[in-house]
Amino acid sequence: MTVTAPAGFEAAGVVAGLKSTGKPDVAVVVNRGPLKVGAAVFTSNRAQANPIIWSRQAIADGVVEAIVLNSGGANCFTGPFGFQTAHQTAEKAAELLGVSAGDVLVCSTGLIGTGDEVFRAKVLDGTMRGVAQLSTDGGESAAQAIMTTDTIAKTAVRQGDGWTIGAMAKGAGMLAPGLATMLVVITTDAVLDAPQADAHLRAATRTTFDRLDSDGCMSTNDQVSLLVSGASGVTPDEAEFGAALADLCRELAVKLQRDAEGASHDITIRVEHAASESDAVEVGRSVARNNLFKAAIFGNDPNWGRVLAAIGTTTAHFDPYDVDVWMNGVRVCTAGGPDRPREEVDLTPRATDLLIDLKTGDAAATVLTNDLTHDYVHENSAYAS
Amino acid sequence: MTVTAPAGFEAAGVVAGLKSTGKPDVAVVVNRGPLKVGAAVFTSNRAQANPIIWSRQAIADGVVEAIVLNSGGANCFTGPFGFQTAHQTAEKAAELLGVSAGDVLVCSTGLIGTGDEVFRAKVLDGTMRGVAQLSTDGGESAAQAIMTTDTIAKTAVRQGDGWTIGAMAKGAGMLAPGLATMLVVITTDAVLDAPQADAHLRAATRTTFDRLDSDGCMSTNDQVSLLVSGASGVTPDEAEFGAALADLCRELAVKLQRDAEGASHDITIRVEHAASESDAVEVGRSVARNNLFKAAIFGNDPNWGRVLAAIGTTTAHFDPYDVDVWMNGVRVCTAGGPDRPREEVDLTPRATDLLIDLKTGDAAATVLTNDLTHDYVHENSAYAS
Repeated sequence: MTVTAPAGFEAAGVVAGLKSTGKPDVAVVVNRGPLKVGAAVFTSNRAQANPIIWSRQAIADGVVEAIVLNSGGANCFTGPFGFQTAHQTAEKAAELLGVSAGDVLVCSTGLIGTGDEVFRAKVLDGTMRGVAQLSTDGGESAAQAIMTTDTIAKTAVRQGDGWTIGAMAKGAGMLAPGLATMLVVITTDAVLDAPQADAHLRAATRTTFDRLDSDGCMSTNDQVSLLVSGASGVTPDEAEFGAALADLCRELAVKLQRDAEGASHDITIRVEHAASESDAVEVGRSVARNNLFKAAIFGNDPNWGRVLAAIGTTTAHFDPYDVDVWMNGVRVCTAGGPDRPREEVDLTPRATDLLIDLKTGDAAATVLTNDLTHDYVHENSAYAS
Repeated sequence: MTVTAPAGFEAAGVVAGLKSTGKPDVAVVVNRGPLKVGAAVFTSNRAQANPIIWSRQAIADGVVEAIVLNSGGANCFTGPFGFQTAHQTAEKAAELLGVSAGDVLVCSTGLIGTGDEVFRAKVLDGTMRGVAQLSTDGGESAAQAIMTTDTIAKTAVRQGDGWTIGAMAKGAGMLAPGLATMLVVITTDAVLDAPQADAHLRAATRTTFDRLDSDGCMSTNDQVSLLVSGASGVTPDEAEFGAALADLCRELAVKLQRDAEGASHDITIRVEHAASESDAVEVGRSVARNNLFKAAIFGNDPNWGRVLAAIGTTTAHFDPYDVDVWMNGVRVCTAGGPDRPREEVDLTPRATDLLIDLKTGDAAATVLTNDLTHDYVHENSAYAS
């Protein structure tokens, strides 16, 4: 059901010829209202793709009528021509839908530098056919159209007291803070105004998508959007809606982690007793980005020394000689020294739990990452992406 | 000739049984004077091995009589027992040499967490036999004794006007800023006082070892020491000595880069027209640590989009849409857009040149790194180190 699960939304996924595989590659999601509220968060990379530059302007007024998304080309570092392509895409959709181009968001994903005349023609053609094929059953085909190296379409739904949230996501590599290489569209028929939508989206992404750091590489194209139709007529309990939205984002973040390119372990790094949440996140990210630790996990090696070496590079408050480390429930390091024998740690399961106790304060955070594998190197060296 | 090339130094490398291969694993370098000047720089990781904690204290007065180095165990995160081991090692050498233990530096390299009773006994035994075998020809055997996954012993010599500088280095993985996993001992018979030695060493390492960033992982054990015997009786021209020392450090840094674990490309990242040297270094490091870029180079893929995406994550001053990128002499990106076709770039040679023109100011810097390969993943996953 995905983005068309809530009332008030239509979607479509079509084949525009951007992907050499001939699979769907352009998706359109339209909000039929009555509300046309939108919110979005974007990559924090200063190198931003043209669709990001366009969508940042379009979202400013908190009104979104539709989103056009394409895979098969990032339209990033493609110059003024590429920006015009994003602009024309919004105009094409707006013209067909009878709305303002300034209320149409655009998202692209694929190879940076791709965005020539052929690309433009295909995206515009796909937009046209996507709008023509819009339906309240179109969520699944839209979810498929945004896939790149994803092996499965990622969708999620949450039901509240009279309202629904639906979502689709794509992303399999270049997963890093300030958003992974992800495009996410979330829809809801709950009644929210623009400031509420913005606040809920930022709160939910801050502890979910923003803490997925598969390979430390920040994308140029990330965008997570929330569209609000209000079609249920129900004004949700704020806390209840916020919790449901965060839970949905967490489900999608875990799905992105589990489908990360070439990974053989999904590593949950939990940092506890930090002096602050930002300290906990800094420590978690530092470990998540340590290639030696990530390669050790691939080799089923509970190498806690590499964990401590990674923690030592941070500015977080803690005593490097008073840190405990657990791997899959076994305390391998106590107070910065060896504890249980490494043989007791079973790292053969894909799900890997790393717990770091900083023994400093009361804050905690969880960062999700993956191991560094032969397949990661293969996928990212053998194919331009 | 290595560390025994300058007059006034003796060295030895012996088999202490720390390495399972039975190869030499303890080295001793002694300064016979007349000067006993020393300087050292250490890893900036807050997680510091016991030999680092010991040596930081020992170097404070600028006097160094000897250095004891071992491979086969890092003596890091081994608690008070490990610190006592470092202390006892210095005392053992001092007792045999008739000097103060506070003037003996200690260096260790190997697996973090290794430093038990057996380790201590072997290191002390190795120290004893190393001192007994000291000779003015011992430089080569000392250089071999500090090797870990290094495939070749790394040494360098520079001759000045009546003075000589000699050096040995080890390091093949965990090469990162604030020093790589490197142990380096540099000796000279030039006449320098302690402040001069310290200033020269810091100036030379800042633009050489500190800019070698093979895999972004900062070690707990790095130490680069300079011992000054003054045995030549020659006070060198300051500029000449500084240039020779920097040149020697650069040669060793390149040797470390070329021997990095599993690498198939040695990548020289030159950042030009930056607003400041620190901006240039930040940009170079960001690219050097980007796994997607590194994997692309392994695959001989001139993926300049990944370079720009990495640059975009920095705080350096520049316009992301006005950056030029050259790979092996071919300008693949002009003003943040595609330039020459990727087919023109030949990435088959091991030596890879990446040039980034930020078009902002007059500063520049060079960062050395390697590609991300199957062999890197294999070496760092299959063996605990």
